[in-house]
Amino acid sequence: MPDECTQPTAQEMRLADVLAALADDHRRHVVRELVRSEDGTGRTCTSFGLPVSKSTRSHHFKVLREAGLVHQVDRGNMSGVTLRRDDVERRFPGLLALVEIEDGSAG
Amino acid sequence: MPDECTQPTAQEMRLADVLAALADDHRRHVVRELVRSEDGTGRTCTSFGLPVSKSTRSHHFKVLREAGLVHQVDRGNMSGVTLRRDDVERRFPGLLALVEIEDGSAG
Repeated sequence: MPDECTQPTAQEMRLADVLAALADDHRRHVVRELVRSEDGTGRTCTSFGLPVSKSTRSHHFKVLREAGLVHQVDRGNMSGVTLRRDDVERRFPGLLALVEIEDGSAG
Repeated sequence: MPDECTQPTAQEMRLADVLAALADDHRRHVVRELVRSEDGTGRTCTSFGLPVSKSTRSHHFKVLREAGLVHQVDRGNMSGVTLRRDDVERRFPGLLALVEIEDGSAG
């Protein structure tokens, strides 16, 4: 049975946590890749190519999960994430779009 | 002549800096008060009632200014800020609205 980690419901999400999660370049890279993917796309945590140690990578995904931005499911040695697109969009409309377009609009 | 501090143009604003600035509760309080005020409202830095030391308060306003969220003008012993509402809205549409409605939508 998958080991689903603790994460807030849509209503429990706090703007402070979501903004803090997205303020980090590595975490924003992960969210941007997921936003630009087909809805429901599952990715392993290693597939984003973050140039960090395993423990730092784990920390980043914990922050994303606890903020409510991603679902994380661990199955043995496979740790996968999906974007909580609908939940985030309902609670913080427009926020994911800012992350999605960031590179294109940067000055 | 007023001493206008360094701040990015609208095009120089970076999403990372704006998110990091808004991730802090005190700084979000300042922006929320300004968003809810009439456009162009000028406020002294002390008028927001932040429960912090003078140096910490100065730091918070420096972060807001360098992110591009506020204009800060120092005239002798009066330090005032205004929200760069149009610039922020043009660069990051919808972001200020999330801060504005935060209390009402929490929980």
